Amino acid sequence: MSSVALATGGVTIRDLENSLHKAVTEVTSTMLNYQSVIVPCDESVLVPGVSAIVGFGGKVSGALTLHISPEGACTLASGLLGMEFREVDEIVADAMGEIVNMLAGGLKKYACQTEEIFKISIPSVIRGNDYCTHVPKDFERRMLGVQAGPCSFVLQLVIDVS
Amino acid sequence: MSSVALATGGVTIRDLENSLHKAVTEVTSTMLNYQSVIVPCDESVLVPGVSAIVGFGGKVSGALTLHISPEGACTLASGLLGMEFREVDEIVADAMGEIVNMLAGGLKKYACQTEEIFKISIPSVIRGNDYCTHVPKDFERRMLGVQAGPCSFVLQLVIDVS
Repeated sequence: MSSVALATGGVTIRDLENSLHKAVTEVTSTMLNYQSVIVPCDESVLVPGVSAIVGFGGKVSGALTLHISPEGACTLASGLLGMEFREVDEIVADAMGEIVNMLAGGLKKYACQTEEIFKISIPSVIRGNDYCTHVPKDFERRMLGVQAGPCSFVLQLVIDVS
Repeated sequence: MSSVALATGGVTIRDLENSLHKAVTEVTSTMLNYQSVIVPCDESVLVPGVSAIVGFGGKVSGALTLHISPEGACTLASGLLGMEFREVDEIVADAMGEIVNMLAGGLKKYACQTEEIFKISIPSVIRGNDYCTHVPKDFERRMLGVQAGPCSFVLQLVIDVS
C-alpha cells in the first residue's frame, strides 16, 4: 500500500474518482434525465461563472467543486427545476449548490459502502466574472470534464493526503 | 428546546458562534500575536478579494468562510509567515486557507468538547476582483467582523438547520 493510501486509511484518490464517476452517471440520469460522458481535463479549461463547493471531512478530508459557465448553469438549473433561466440569479445559484450536494452525496454513497470514511458539509456557491479557485499544492486533485445532455461542466476533486 | 436545536442534535448557531469567538481570540493571539475585537456585521461589508472556506459535516453541517481584502490578506499572511507580501500570490492564498483551517479547528475544539458533532474539510480559497458568495436561504448564518491587530476581516458561519 502506498504512503498516500496509508495517510487516508487505505483510500486513494483513484478510489474516490471511480466513485465520483458512478455518482455523476447516477445524478445526471436520475435527476436530470441526461446521459453523461466524463473525460479527464486540466485547470486550463476553467473560466469564471459559477463554482459550487462541498467539503468533506473524516478519515479522508477533501472538497468537491463544480465549475460551470453562466450559460451552462442556467441550462442545468432548467433541467433540474423545469423552469427557464436567462441569468444566474439566486435560484440558479441554489440549484448549482443542490447539484454539487447530490454529487457529493453520491460520492459518499459509493465511497463509504463498507465504512463511513467522511461526512459532507453544506454547499457554498461562488459566482462572478473575475475569480479563480486555489488548491494548496500538497493536496491531490483530479479534474473531470462532464458533458451531460446539453451542458458541460468541470468537477474538481481534492483530497488531503498529508 | 427549539426545532432548530432539535434538528442539529441540540446545538444552536449561538453555541457555535460562542465557540467561534473563543477560536478567533485564541488563533489571533497565539498564531499572529494580535489582540482581536469581534463585532456582529452584515453582508453589506463584503467586498471581493480573498474568501477562504472550510466546510464541516456531521450532526451539524455547515461552513466557515473568511472574507478579506487583498491588502488585508497580504498583511495577515505577513503576520503569519514573517515575510512581506505586496499582492495575493499562491503563498498568500495558502496562508488564508491555513488561517481559516485553524479557526475551524478551534471552532471544533470548543464546540465538540463532550461529543464530536462534526468533522472539518480541507480549505478552498477563492480570489478575484468580481465575485460574490451565496448561501441558500434556508440555512442559518452569522457574520462577525474581526479587527485583529492591523487587519480586519469578516467571518461567515453558516449551518444547516433543516
